[in-house]
Amino acid sequence: MFKNSHSVVKYYFDEFICEGDRVADATAGGGSDTLSLKLRVGQSGFVYSFDIQNEALIKTEKKLNENGITDGYKLIFDSHSNMDKHISEKLKAVVFNLGYLPGGDHSIHTKPDTTITAVEKSLDLISEDGFVIITIYHGGDSGFEERDRLLEYLQNLDNKKYNVLLYNFINKPNCPPMVAVITNEEFLRRKQLGKI
Amino acid sequence: MFKNSHSVVKYYFDEFICEGDRVADATAGGGSDTLSLKLRVGQSGFVYSFDIQNEALIKTEKKLNENGITDGYKLIFDSHSNMDKHISEKLKAVVFNLGYLPGGDHSIHTKPDTTITAVEKSLDLISEDGFVIITIYHGGDSGFEERDRLLEYLQNLDNKKYNVLLYNFINKPNCPPMVAVITNEEFLRRKQLGKI
Repeated sequence: MFKNSHSVVKYYFDEFICEGDRVADATAGGGSDTLSLKLRVGQSGFVYSFDIQNEALIKTEKKLNENGITDGYKLIFDSHSNMDKHISEKLKAVVFNLGYLPGGDHSIHTKPDTTITAVEKSLDLISEDGFVIITIYHGGDSGFEERDRLLEYLQNLDNKKYNVLLYNFINKPNCPPMVAVITNEEFLRRKQLGKI
Repeated sequence: MFKNSHSVVKYYFDEFICEGDRVADATAGGGSDTLSLKLRVGQSGFVYSFDIQNEALIKTEKKLNENGITDGYKLIFDSHSNMDKHISEKLKAVVFNLGYLPGGDHSIHTKPDTTITAVEKSLDLISEDGFVIITIYHGGDSGFEERDRLLEYLQNLDNKKYNVLLYNFINKPNCPPMVAVITNEEFLRRKQLGKI
C-alpha cells in the first residue's frame, strides 16, 4: 500500500530496477535518488546523475562516498535537457524530481521547457521494458506552471507508443507531489498477452 | 507495470488479499470480481456479493459454480448502500465497479447517492489493514456525474484517518476507467515507521 509519492517511487525502484541495470537520475538534488539507484543496480550497474548546480553534485558525490561507493556512476554538470549528449546506451529507467534543491536556492528550479525536452529525450533512451518516473512537486515556491505544462505534454503522448499512469494522493492538503510513470505501451500489451 | 485499471485491481487482489480473508464485492455485475476474490480467499475465506439486479446474481452464481465453487460466499439481492445490514464482521477489502452491468440494461447503473453511502459504510467495515478499491467508469452511458460527486467526496475524506490514491491513465482516449484506493492512514504511518 502506498502512503505517499516516496513509497510509489520506492516500489518502482524495488520491483523493476535490477542488479546490472543502467539508469539515470535526471535531477541529482540532494543525491538520495542517485544513492538508491546505485544501491539497486549494484557494482555491475551504472548511474548517470545530472544537475545544473555544482553544489548538488558535490552533495551527491559525498553521499555516495559515505556509503562506500566510489565508482560505477557519473555525475554530470549539465542540464538534463542535454542528456543525449552524455549517454549513448539504453537505460532501464530515468528518474526526475521536479522542483528545487531541498535546502538550496529556491529561485533555481527545473523549468517547463527544459523538463519537457529532457523527458522527450529520456523516452528515446529507455529500453522497451524501461520506464521514466517523475515526481512532480507543485504549489508553494514551485508554482503550478511546470506541472500544468508537463501534464499537458504527457496527456498528449501517443497512446499507441506510451502508457502514462498518474498517481495522485487526492485527499492530502498542501498539494502533495504526484508521480507520473511512462512505460512502453507495446511492451505492456505483449506482456498482457503472455508473449513476454 | 500497470497497463490499465484491470491490472491495478489485479495487483491489489494478488498482493493484499490472502487465504482466509473476508471480503465484499459491492457490485457483482458479471461476477468476475466475485470469482477472483473467492479464488484469492480460498475455502477458508468468505465473499459477500451485492447487486440490485437478480440477473447479475444469477450470472455470478453460475460463474462460481462453473469454477467448482459452491460455498464460502453469499449473494445478496440488495443495494450495496445497505451493506451494514448484511455484514457484521470486519472485512479485508470492499470492491466496487461503478457503471452498469456489461451487456445489461444501460439505464440501470450505480448512482452517486447510493454509491457514496455504500463507500462510507465500507470504510466502517474494513479492518485497519484493509482497503476499499473502486473502479470508476465514466463518460459514455455512465456520464460524469457519478465520477465528479464521488471524487469530491473522496477528496474531502479526513486525511488523518484515510489515504486516497487515485490511479489515472492520462494519455488514453475515451475516458478509460480510473481506480481509487482508500486505506487507513494511521496504519500506513505506523507501517512506514516500522512499528508493524
